[in-house]
Amino acid sequence: MSATNRRVAVRAVRPQVDGGRYPAKRSVGELIDVEADVFADSHDAVLATVCWRPKGARRWSEAPMEHLGNDRHRGVFTLDEPGRYEYRVTGWIDRFGTWQRDTLTKLEAGVATGVDLAIGAELLDDHRAKGDDRAEVARIRDQLVDERLELPARAEPALSDAATELVARIDPRPHATASDRFELRVDRARARYSTWYELFPRSASPDPDRHGTLDDVIARLPYVADLGFDVLYLPPIHPIGRSHRKGRNNSVVAEPDDLGSPWAIGGQEGGHEAIHPDLGTIDDLRRLVAACGEHGLELALDIAFQCSPDHPWVTEHPEWFRARPDGTIQYAENPPKKYQDIYPLDFETADPEGLWNALKGVFERWIDEGVRIFRVDNPHTKAFPFWEWCLDELTRDHPDLIFLSESFTRPAVMEELARIGFNQSYTYFAWRDEKWELERYYAELFLTDKVDFLRPNSWPNTPDILTEYLQRHGRPGFVQKLLLAATLTANYGIYGPTFELMEHVARPGAEEYLDNEKYQQRTWDLDAPHSLAELIARVNAIRHEHPALQQDRSFALHEVDNDALLAYSKRDPVTGDTVLCVVNVDPAWKQGGFTWLDLEALGFEEEDEDPRFEVYDALGDARYVWQGRRNYVELDPHVTPGHIFVVRDLSQLSDPSTREVPV
Amino acid sequence: MSATNRRVAVRAVRPQVDGGRYPAKRSVGELIDVEADVFADSHDAVLATVCWRPKGARRWSEAPMEHLGNDRHRGVFTLDEPGRYEYRVTGWIDRFGTWQRDTLTKLEAGVATGVDLAIGAELLDDHRAKGDDRAEVARIRDQLVDERLELPARAEPALSDAATELVARIDPRPHATASDRFELRVDRARARYSTWYELFPRSASPDPDRHGTLDDVIARLPYVADLGFDVLYLPPIHPIGRSHRKGRNNSVVAEPDDLGSPWAIGGQEGGHEAIHPDLGTIDDLRRLVAACGEHGLELALDIAFQCSPDHPWVTEHPEWFRARPDGTIQYAENPPKKYQDIYPLDFETADPEGLWNALKGVFERWIDEGVRIFRVDNPHTKAFPFWEWCLDELTRDHPDLIFLSESFTRPAVMEELARIGFNQSYTYFAWRDEKWELERYYAELFLTDKVDFLRPNSWPNTPDILTEYLQRHGRPGFVQKLLLAATLTANYGIYGPTFELMEHVARPGAEEYLDNEKYQQRTWDLDAPHSLAELIARVNAIRHEHPALQQDRSFALHEVDNDALLAYSKRDPVTGDTVLCVVNVDPAWKQGGFTWLDLEALGFEEEDEDPRFEVYDALGDARYVWQGRRNYVELDPHVTPGHIFVVRDLSQLSDPSTREVPV
Repeated sequence: MSATNRRVAVRAVRPQVDGGRYPAKRSVGELIDVEADVFADSHDAVLATVCWRPKGARRWSEAPMEHLGNDRHRGVFTLDEPGRYEYRVTGWIDRFGTWQRDTLTKLEAGVATGVDLAIGAELLDDHRAKGDDRAEVARIRDQLVDERLELPARAEPALSDAATELVARIDPRPHATASDRFELRVDRARARYSTWYELFPRSASPDPDRHGTLDDVIARLPYVADLGFDVLYLPPIHPIGRSHRKGRNNSVVAEPDDLGSPWAIGGQEGGHEAIHPDLGTIDDLRRLVAACGEHGLELALDIAFQCSPDHPWVTEHPEWFRARPDGTIQYAENPPKKYQDIYPLDFETADPEGLWNALKGVFERWIDEGVRIFRVDNPHTKAFPFWEWCLDELTRDHPDLIFLSESFTRPAVMEELARIGFNQSYTYFAWRDEKWELERYYAELFLTDKVDFLRPNSWPNTPDILTEYLQRHGRPGFVQKLLLAATLTANYGIYGPTFELMEHVARPGAEEYLDNEKYQQRTWDLDAPHSLAELIARVNAIRHEHPALQQDRSFALHEVDNDALLAYSKRDPVTGDTVLCVVNVDPAWKQGGFTWLDLEALGFEEEDEDPRFEVYDALGDARYVWQGRRNYVELDPHVTPGHIFVVRDLSQLSDPSTREVPV
Repeated sequence: MSATNRRVAVRAVRPQVDGGRYPAKRSVGELIDVEADVFADSHDAVLATVCWRPKGARRWSEAPMEHLGNDRHRGVFTLDEPGRYEYRVTGWIDRFGTWQRDTLTKLEAGVATGVDLAIGAELLDDHRAKGDDRAEVARIRDQLVDERLELPARAEPALSDAATELVARIDPRPHATASDRFELRVDRARARYSTWYELFPRSASPDPDRHGTLDDVIARLPYVADLGFDVLYLPPIHPIGRSHRKGRNNSVVAEPDDLGSPWAIGGQEGGHEAIHPDLGTIDDLRRLVAACGEHGLELALDIAFQCSPDHPWVTEHPEWFRARPDGTIQYAENPPKKYQDIYPLDFETADPEGLWNALKGVFERWIDEGVRIFRVDNPHTKAFPFWEWCLDELTRDHPDLIFLSESFTRPAVMEELARIGFNQSYTYFAWRDEKWELERYYAELFLTDKVDFLRPNSWPNTPDILTEYLQRHGRPGFVQKLLLAATLTANYGIYGPTFELMEHVARPGAEEYLDNEKYQQRTWDLDAPHSLAELIARVNAIRHEHPALQQDRSFALHEVDNDALLAYSKRDPVTGDTVLCVVNVDPAWKQGGFTWLDLEALGFEEEDEDPRFEVYDALGDARYVWQGRRNYVELDPHVTPGHIFVVRDLSQLSDPSTREVPV
């Protein structure tokens, strides 16, 4: 290091993922907040800006940072285009501001001298003002050294707010310090807020004797759209292997007419780039993509990088699989279990380039057909460097892509997949039942730096998961899990129609559906009177109306003095929209208790110790007036297990007639 | 990125200061622990090592890492030489271990085949064993494929612990992943554990009419050594300015015989490289350095980079100071206060090289005289890049240097000074009086990553600080603060003899001593009957006997159901020595309460829910038998405000007669 006049330090910039090794994630339209410690030696004041630019651009944009106290500074901005950006924080000594502060103190104490004011004039000489600014700076400067005036009068223009504003604008920022540069990935808004519906095309046929087709799926779109979903996700649509095909209910031997699992990909009709002939043709898929768009839906495809023994790659590229000493190909295992219908790809292959490019080609094939959302099956069984490369390459050309990581393994692995590029992640949501478990898990996801790179997508059920909870607790259990999934996380989904029809019978000894669509066609009565469709539509409409529920970054927990009542809130930083949810996680019994609210998280000022406010239950369409931190809640799971309260500060309502709402 | 077979990820390496931008600090002989998340895709097991080397060396040393659970790994090592090192974590797929695990499962389930065992033989072919290992590997390998044997018998040698150990030793570690490299500064042990005594040489004279000298300080050394201190720290020993010299009790006008403040450095006799003629000569200093060594003490000098108006630099290097518009030099200010006896150095000087080198030269001048410890006055009023450069340059040549940062400003600034190179730091200790304040502060210092770069040095008093607490609370207050300083942090010091003589009268309206030695000579009666000397010697002896108190990294808080009783423990990771302190922070009243001990922090196994153990109060020389988490403590501040308990697990004592100690 050579000697320097630099005196400002910039530290602890947030967001900062893994010390800056990986990009932070934000989305279009979202308030992007950057914080840093910015400070100098001595007692001089500092100023700071947050700067950002698209990666590769030369010019930085910047926004001023506000001092939050204790040297912490915060700046915010928004971005309109998805893509890669970089940001940094710059700080410098606020020489004029420091002089203003000190001079005011000296004048008030009566110890200021003409020399003190002349120092201010000298500082202004360093500023390169132009046009009107130039004349104004000269006026302020000249008055500072005008010996005909008394000291306080001389200093008056220089100590004004207008001078502060003017001088900050033209500050030459000598010896400024810039932080390291950090990367930001800006996704489109749907990466932040999405509502998924999964269905099996094979069961979309109304006729149990006819295999469902992509056309049947098109016919189902109005139903899915009416429920308020915006992503339609289909399990793999490719040809299914015949060798070692699994039968109904996962039996080891299939009957001749068994359909097999869509995840046993590849047959003589083709592999990952082909469409199962029973579902339709590439033209049918194109019509489905278009029809989804017409219904406000987007199609998401499932990419599962594994092969049936009949997949073309097995013969064309045996080097992509692991050979056993007897010359056969290594099938999937979870010892002592064997999955002989599945060949995993070998990421220690001697031809990693070939394998990686082929896999990327699979995405590109469907991207070319207009698909922009992919649910990736078991990404944690493929090498991390592959994903990092593949997602980076694909999003470079298509910044509107969204990848959902289907990974239910150890936390470090799930987080790694998010860190290296997946836009959304499945979580342990389905197995978090108790209040303390939910509090701990969402505090970990939202109140640590994980919130900067991992976007949870909550699923109460999937074709692989019918939890004991859903098996046992009937309608209250289903409704509770729906409310939690839809309000805890801005991204959630259900596997239907099993969910809305409350399918809950499991294959004995498994957390899996009996007569699972993975292995056979089912026919569903969508009009069944017990269907939750209407409730789901209502919950999705509430999500749609409330920006608070369309983001995760303002999540806060609130205390309730009952171990079955979970309370949490979200607040949209742009609109101030605030939603407070209270959920009874006991599916059997009515529970009541008193809240102890985090009022600041609900948008009240720190000094506002006992505010009155309205909570409007958007789910139950009821209004209550609450006051302060302590308020009573009671929830009967057989009526409704939760409130979705919209919080409105009564003192800020313009119409006074609404200020006295009957409780 | 080009395609790779690498499958292991290494993340969240700790220690990691500011994302790896700054070195972590450790010391000679200390257990250096490194943790990281190490994991692969799929279910393959991984192995990891922590590697280290002196900076600039080519060869890495390494130690195996242990899996702690949830993909977290931990490795430890120690270093014998102070200096700069770097470390990293390497992880790879444990192919043979994975095969052993899976094969054992298959054998137990009766589904193993000869092919499964042949896979193990293939793996062994990749290992490059030498000598005896080679024969042993061949034996294990050949038996795996010996078709004359039953499967379990064939596999037996390959599944043995001996095979695990052998194969791990010769594992070729294909496709291993190395983390980034992180820097480690290893200080000598005294940076971690030191006991400081500050005194004014001017008052070391037994004769109030004769100015104290360095020879008087030499005569005082047996007293300081008997009290158990190992660092003798002197305020600046340089010539003192005459212009604007401050008089007794900080009066603005000095009498002709007033001595002035040692921190107003520089006169016609010289500046920072000269010795005040009233104190002695350079030869006297050399004799003092040597005499300190003979008493087990080390001399620490105070470096205060500021100048009196009479300092030679003011005329020789006016460019190192800031000029005011009237041509005078800018004196120190804290508006509205003016300190016209002090000229700060201007780090925005046009000659930063000249200034930086001159300041470094000051250290070098005293380093040449054998001084290795420096207390740096107000480092936060000098530019951070200067310190980073200066400490780096100096420690490069002298890795045994120790710099204590005297900075009592905002937390971000105090931490920055530690991060950029200071080995020890003054803290807010003197103003943390309540239990909750102490708990919060030491949790922040020791239970966050600050512990990796900031070593607190606790001072209950300094020449600048006589807290209201010490002014008001008499002997109980002094004893309590002594116990806290000496046991909370491995580094602590007192400013004597004011401390042991319990000087507590302040200049009215200030937290500062009346008749402060900063401005005048004092004469002390070291044999006064109320002196705390004996207690201080006892406390320092306990520190000397207990490695637990010689480090800060194992600090733990324990609950007590009384808001005046603070409990904390430390445990030496090398010896297992464990000390539990309980302090009554109420200086007036007896307080009692029940503990709720963190038994794991005291060294008990997690499953040992209700252990019986001895707590020996090394301060009060009393033994108690405690059991489990809940035990009663009671402390009368007028008897003693604290226990320093040595904890011994009774079940591990070899002599059974000590197992039944009367309570």
